[in-house]
Amino acid sequence: MKDYTAPSILSGFMELLPDDQIKFNKMLETIKGTYERFGFVPIDTPVIEKSEILLAKSGGETEKQIYRFNKGDSDLSLRFDLTVPLARYVAQHFNSLTFPFRRYQTGKVFRGERAQKGRFREFYQCDIDIVGNETLDIINDAEILSVIYSTFRALGFEKFKIKISNRKVLNGFFEYLGTANKSDILRVIDKIGKIDGKSFKEELVKTGLKNDVIKKIIAFINIKGNVDSIITQLSEMEIDNKLFRDGINELKSVCGYVEYFNIPISNYMIDTTIARGLDYYTGTVYETFLDDYPSIGSVCSGGRYENLAQSYTDRKLPGVGISIGLTRLFYQLKEAGFITEENISTPTKLLVIPMEETMNNALDFATKIREAGIPTEIFFNECKFAKKFSYADKLGIPYVVVIGSDEIAAKEFKLKDMKTGEQKTMRTEDIINTLKTI
Amino acid sequence: MKDYTAPSILSGFMELLPDDQIKFNKMLETIKGTYERFGFVPIDTPVIEKSEILLAKSGGETEKQIYRFNKGDSDLSLRFDLTVPLARYVAQHFNSLTFPFRRYQTGKVFRGERAQKGRFREFYQCDIDIVGNETLDIINDAEILSVIYSTFRALGFEKFKIKISNRKVLNGFFEYLGTANKSDILRVIDKIGKIDGKSFKEELVKTGLKNDVIKKIIAFINIKGNVDSIITQLSEMEIDNKLFRDGINELKSVCGYVEYFNIPISNYMIDTTIARGLDYYTGTVYETFLDDYPSIGSVCSGGRYENLAQSYTDRKLPGVGISIGLTRLFYQLKEAGFITEENISTPTKLLVIPMEETMNNALDFATKIREAGIPTEIFFNECKFAKKFSYADKLGIPYVVVIGSDEIAAKEFKLKDMKTGEQKTMRTEDIINTLKTI
Repeated sequence: MKDYTAPSILSGFMELLPDDQIKFNKMLETIKGTYERFGFVPIDTPVIEKSEILLAKSGGETEKQIYRFNKGDSDLSLRFDLTVPLARYVAQHFNSLTFPFRRYQTGKVFRGERAQKGRFREFYQCDIDIVGNETLDIINDAEILSVIYSTFRALGFEKFKIKISNRKVLNGFFEYLGTANKSDILRVIDKIGKIDGKSFKEELVKTGLKNDVIKKIIAFINIKGNVDSIITQLSEMEIDNKLFRDGINELKSVCGYVEYFNIPISNYMIDTTIARGLDYYTGTVYETFLDDYPSIGSVCSGGRYENLAQSYTDRKLPGVGISIGLTRLFYQLKEAGFITEENISTPTKLLVIPMEETMNNALDFATKIREAGIPTEIFFNECKFAKKFSYADKLGIPYVVVIGSDEIAAKEFKLKDMKTGEQKTMRTEDIINTLKTI
Repeated sequence: MKDYTAPSILSGFMELLPDDQIKFNKMLETIKGTYERFGFVPIDTPVIEKSEILLAKSGGETEKQIYRFNKGDSDLSLRFDLTVPLARYVAQHFNSLTFPFRRYQTGKVFRGERAQKGRFREFYQCDIDIVGNETLDIINDAEILSVIYSTFRALGFEKFKIKISNRKVLNGFFEYLGTANKSDILRVIDKIGKIDGKSFKEELVKTGLKNDVIKKIIAFINIKGNVDSIITQLSEMEIDNKLFRDGINELKSVCGYVEYFNIPISNYMIDTTIARGLDYYTGTVYETFLDDYPSIGSVCSGGRYENLAQSYTDRKLPGVGISIGLTRLFYQLKEAGFITEENISTPTKLLVIPMEETMNNALDFATKIREAGIPTEIFFNECKFAKKFSYADKLGIPYVVVIGSDEIAAKEFKLKDMKTGEQKTMRTEDIINTLKTI
């Protein structure tokens, strides 16, 4: 019977109904607004790039996940992050940019991962990076932490923790241990918090490490406390390795500057076990956890890298940056009940209901409200009055005005608050002032 | 010597430097803001959809241009417009939406066209549509015209013309003529304005039409004048065809309502020769031309359609909508010199330059300015003073403050206007107030 295609989208792709879309957009705008307040510059790169560019430096996992195809003679790929395009952008437009180059970019990236709950194949990333020409002062690493703090405060969170470490500490520690099976140890370290101390030790034994090395690893892992205490404990570990010491000094510098930024000590801490991006990051690393939603994992991560664009230029471009995976974050927050269930499915603040004989005046009236910047809609459909109010109700429009001949004559209108049902008679200017406050 | 890949993007893709990106984003935000003020709801659909969905109803041209590929077992395509995804969205989420459904969507679409100057393979579309359930009052067609008007006014244009017609007029006219070679005639009609009257007639003769039919076509084409006059002339043509008469009546209704919307008569006109989307649109059609840039062609087009989602549902969903192709518009306006050459490459309004001993205070100061919503940047790099000011100059940052110990003690700061070179000593609150006005 049906002669149409059943409408559906691919699995692993997020599509929202208007009420959630409005909430999603608000989060995106909040993030962009915060980035801009710190003076980051927006850029926008193509979704489709040459495969040779996007895959210039990448491992097997990326190759497998990437959406890659041919069109005519071209070998094309969809961007899988915003960092590779940034590297290409900076190398390509080097002479037109001013350094340090502070850029932000928000947009969709694509990864054909195995589909699973809470993972998306198309998702928004919201990135900032500060890229220096040849050098970049370490105070920038502290400022990035301040941007993370301001962003999550602006998103409405108070209880969250930004964990920082320095890649050189962990790398120097491994260098000192002289052990080859770094990745095995990291896999074990990654289980901290998920398994108890005894199992942890057993896992390390399985990797074939000697007992004295295991002892050192456990001592290292057990370093806890406030920022100063951790730095002292690390310094006192008597590990004779330059990289390790450099890492401690950098960590000390960053934490010193962070104090200037007035970030509450409850919102950041050192965690030397952060193992993220071990091949990529070379200095400071960040992860961010929401206290009330630990299962979401890190909601904002990043770090310092030595050389952003070595695949595209021989210039040395060190940088530091972070990324928020907004699609996943939104999904997880919604699952966790953080996203309010309030049903507002339109930006409209006022629904104007004209009568047939007042259409002209109603349009005039609506134009005045709009010119004050207030989203205003006119109800045009011919139907019963109750249905007109029910339209406002269903969409979550907070106020309604009916424009009758009497109102036009009196130059006063009844503003109906849809939540309380209350009506107040007001002049146009007062209606504008009332609506501006919501 | 080089062991890197030369950075480049694909031809036919737009990528902007920060100064142009900021201008582009401003245009995009202006369009979105206007759409929202009219109560349109934002939606966001996947960039990648099932090919069977996107190609459910499409001609050969679309199939040729579409970016289509396989990943695993899936036959995927990149969206080539925002209308097909809207149709799928409305059919799929029908029960969760409130009608009339007023949605806007802005985003990139993809068409692998032959590359040529000013045409893009990846470009932004900015769409609005009003979709009714079963019916949709014709006053909505007039409101769409009002949205076009407000949008282009908000973008800074005064001299532009929205041309409207009704598809039924042209279709009824052809029906009445009883001629089969409609597309040949349309091709000729499309040349109006580009060729003189004599050549025009010759072209019509070439299509094999009889002389009396050609006379009627020329009479139809020559109908000119203001809205009322054109409607009168059309009515007096004595064309005995129901479709034609329906078209005139609809055109009359729309133009009657348009008067209520207070659109200056210099900004709209009837043009019965609009031949756009002949297969798709069934009623009102719109095109928009900038008086000072006629060669750009229509910058905003659309129309009324009988049945949006017939490929995905058996529900009747009539609608009316428009689209602005922003990437092409921006490119053309820049070529034409409309986009100002002012070099502002950052959202930053204030550059704060700390001294080593005042870093703490400088960060405090910057935080206060930021909290007032003003994009503020701190200059961290160690370098000569002149270089710090030159950084502000290069990026087009309008104001600079140097935070010295004296300033901290006096609680007053020298705000330097980078354009005039003028310095004014002010307290923090006054600096905020000054910066808020720019």
